[in-house]
Amino acid sequence: MEYPYEIEMKVRDYECDIQGIVNNSVYQNYLEHARHEYLRSNEVSFAEMHNRGVDAVVARIEMAFKTPLRPGDDFVVKINVQKEGVKYVFHQVIYRKADMKLSLKARVDAVVTVNGKLVSAVPEFDKLVMNS
Amino acid sequence: MEYPYEIEMKVRDYECDIQGIVNNSVYQNYLEHARHEYLRSNEVSFAEMHNRGVDAVVARIEMAFKTPLRPGDDFVVKINVQKEGVKYVFHQVIYRKADMKLSLKARVDAVVTVNGKLVSAVPEFDKLVMNS
Amino acid sequence: MEYPYEIEMKVRDYECDIQGIVNNSVYQNYLEHARHEYLRSNEVSFAEMHNRGVDAVVARIEMAFKTPLRPGDDFVVKINVQKEGVKYVFHQVIYRKADMKLSLKARVDAVVTVNGKLVSAVPEFDKLVMNS
Amino acid sequence: MEYPYEIEMKVRDYECDIQGIVNNSVYQNYLEHARHEYLRSNEVSFAEMHNRGVDAVVARIEMAFKTPLRPGDDFVVKINVQKEGVKYVFHQVIYRKADMKLSLKARVDAVVTVNGKLVSAVPEFDKLVMNS
Repeated sequence: MEYPYEIEMKVRDYECDIQGIVNNSVYQNYLEHARHEYLRSNEVSFAEMHNRGVDAVVARIEMAFKTPLRPGDDFVVKINVQKEGVKYVFHQVIYRKADMKLSLKARVDAVVTVNGKLVSAVPEFDKLVMNS
Repeated sequence: MEYPYEIEMKVRDYECDIQGIVNNSVYQNYLEHARHEYLRSNEVSFAEMHNRGVDAVVARIEMAFKTPLRPGDDFVVKINVQKEGVKYVFHQVIYRKADMKLSLKARVDAVVTVNGKLVSAVPEFDKLVMNS
Repeated sequence: MEYPYEIEMKVRDYECDIQGIVNNSVYQNYLEHARHEYLRSNEVSFAEMHNRGVDAVVARIEMAFKTPLRPGDDFVVKINVQKEGVKYVFHQVIYRKADMKLSLKARVDAVVTVNGKLVSAVPEFDKLVMNS
Repeated sequence: MEYPYEIEMKVRDYECDIQGIVNNSVYQNYLEHARHEYLRSNEVSFAEMHNRGVDAVVARIEMAFKTPLRPGDDFVVKINVQKEGVKYVFHQVIYRKADMKLSLKARVDAVVTVNGKLVSAVPEFDKLVMNS
């Protein structure tokens, strides 16, 4: 699979828990931020879409945790988007920069609502699919 | 499926994002807290286990998001634990209290390491399985 | 000082960092949640106020960190509200339940805006002052 | 006041709450991350210090909230460190990049413990003071 978008980030110490590694829930923050930055790189802001009544809603997430990230680790989040019926499926992977070891593999299924009603597609997300 | 453990919680406003609903990553916090409280109800503390070199490590999470929780919502998190090979599989559901609507359905696969080495089972978790 | 409102909470493991204690930023979550619950106990919802264009805005916070909270600690957050000019001043303390040791002492100065404009007072907050 | 260290960051959407602005508690995350990166720029890791038994403990925080940060805002966090008795006093400011408007002004008083005992100074932090 090819990933047309990627973004580099760095672990912040407050994201780590008593096990000394990034808390599992924080990976969802990383994944969400990467998706929103991908949108933004296409001149689309999640907040502005929300104000227009357009909301992306995550229906399902699957995450496989491989190598835990630790304080100070640099990492890269990559994204590929596919369309499956009404769903936009985000395939996302996180690699630790130091050795490019796979840290996390995720699949995020999202649907889009306009004024609370499910729609089958919106151009803002179709653009992401076309890149993939 | 029967759930031998359940815990009640309440949405806190800071857990909600610009969409006015609980941010997706926060459900993982809810699920983790419920699992740790389940352990604690069996006189086992996650922090104390960690200090003894025993760590539960989440290998995989699957979450289906149904009804979003909102500011002030009371909810209940339920847990059933099964053993599949070396894995402890936590089946967890979240229901909104007001109408007992399903908010989230999750499956969390964990393995246990002792001093960093994978072990096939520990009594602390086997007890949870026997309850289920 | 007397505290007309108090709420009990419990440390969640994910709120603790690599030092094994509650991360400093999380105390602000505790303080905010306690304030919002105080409002709610007076039939006022922060989210509903926001939808009506009424926003409480924190202008200043002072926190003295005394005894750190740890995984599993029960604690109580107490609140007293005073009016000083346009400001509502929340005096908040957190005590660890096990020994009622002072964990945190805070002063939170808030102002209220209606449709973005500073107002000198709103009945929702005046009620909290009258209780104190 | 001159600030010998600064770091650029960007608001992430999940850090914003139902008011559509960065939640107040998140500024503490920003401030902490900036302090830890300042240490790291001097080849000192907070996690590694902790493993050696050396812990920086925040005793007091004062924050004045000026201009709220919003989704997508770039900002810069600046740091100046002074020594006052046993305390290391971190003066920190946050500016919004777009117009260099002051977003937050903070004073963070920290002390250092070695194996749980208060010490008057450690070279790792004295170096930060000498830069200021």
